[in-house]
Amino acid sequence: MNLFYAPALLNGILRLSEDESHHALKVLRLKAGDELRATDGVGSFYDCQVTDTTKGVCQVKVLKKTTPPHPGFRIHLAVGIIKTSDRMEWLVEKATELGVEQISFFTPTRSERKKANQDRLRKIALSAMKQSLQPWLPFVDVHRDFSDLITEPGESQTFIAHAGEGVPHLKDVVKKKQHYLILIGPEGDFTNEELEEARVKSITMVGLGPHRLRTETAAIAACHVLNLVNE
Amino acid sequence: MNLFYAPALLNGILRLSEDESHHALKVLRLKAGDELRATDGVGSFYDCQVTDTTKGVCQVKVLKKTTPPHPGFRIHLAVGIIKTSDRMEWLVEKATELGVEQISFFTPTRSERKKANQDRLRKIALSAMKQSLQPWLPFVDVHRDFSDLITEPGESQTFIAHAGEGVPHLKDVVKKKQHYLILIGPEGDFTNEELEEARVKSITMVGLGPHRLRTETAAIAACHVLNLVNE
Repeated sequence: MNLFYAPALLNGILRLSEDESHHALKVLRLKAGDELRATDGVGSFYDCQVTDTTKGVCQVKVLKKTTPPHPGFRIHLAVGIIKTSDRMEWLVEKATELGVEQISFFTPTRSERKKANQDRLRKIALSAMKQSLQPWLPFVDVHRDFSDLITEPGESQTFIAHAGEGVPHLKDVVKKKQHYLILIGPEGDFTNEELEEARVKSITMVGLGPHRLRTETAAIAACHVLNLVNE
Repeated sequence: MNLFYAPALLNGILRLSEDESHHALKVLRLKAGDELRATDGVGSFYDCQVTDTTKGVCQVKVLKKTTPPHPGFRIHLAVGIIKTSDRMEWLVEKATELGVEQISFFTPTRSERKKANQDRLRKIALSAMKQSLQPWLPFVDVHRDFSDLITEPGESQTFIAHAGEGVPHLKDVVKKKQHYLILIGPEGDFTNEELEEARVKSITMVGLGPHRLRTETAAIAACHVLNLVNE
């Protein structure tokens, strides 16, 4: 089963983009009269019928729009930029599969790497959304600032992952059905200044278990915990 | 901090292997008198002092052996061979970080790929064990048979992951402190015959939540659940 991404459907524009048209018409060889399923990336599915394929543009009409109930919680995952691109890429893929709604990367003091390829990461999120047949496209932003993130209003529970003595496990402090922001440190961990800044903002410090996890593994572990608590 | 793999220490052989000697002497430039930490891969750490470096062989004496308490549960993860090598490789890396003790790959009926590079996967497990500073090296075997796996004695709770109506979530049926075997299907899912075979053996069918996960993501999600239940 294939899922197409067609955000324009939300605005009543009944055609697929160039990329998606190519996939529909050249790869899957759909013809007028064939059916396909698309999502707007913001929560709805559209069962469509191809009406016209002239000039390589896949025109459709919507047969049915369905909007599955929202699970009632949102995850905003914020991660220090990772040294190697492929680890960031798989993090985005896995976080998308797990239904994360927002993925931010920030440059922590101890990061060895300061830049990330936002376009590529967004493409990976798009591809993972389609592959996992989900109607939510996470928003990926690689230019976030740690201080801005922790002062941003809107999240009802904010956590910072930090292994340490007496730090509670995320699963023991998380409340159900919230808007979560979870901050995951870089490879060299947060600096004392960053931790202090988080402490001042009353951000809850949490652990993720006894294992020493890489940044990207810790991020996915945290998403799993947040999903499990709400299932 | 570096962790060396020296299984021979268990047998009182006080030198590192060729690879590990190279890393100690050529990369880290350790000299006689320097200290290092090694593990035997079966649960113990050895704080050692380098005694001799002649001919590129790192000889050591053990200053202290420590054996952290075993967590009291074991995870045997069995996964259908995955089409792309890199997804299998990261699965092995992540499973190792999460403390899985045995990783088996089997060739399911619906697998598009029948072979896997066992040597490379074992190297990845070794590297992940050292990186995560753990004293357990998971045993990786890529030649397992589905029917053999589900009839193997020794595991006290065996699960097969399969999304379906009325299937309970793994977290709701798992008991603490067991020896778990969790079977994860291939990309095309298990066949009805395989599911029936599992049903006949009274293997518990479990789900992993509402998201449609790739094989390797499902495998890691299952390990997280098993860890969380025991934390």
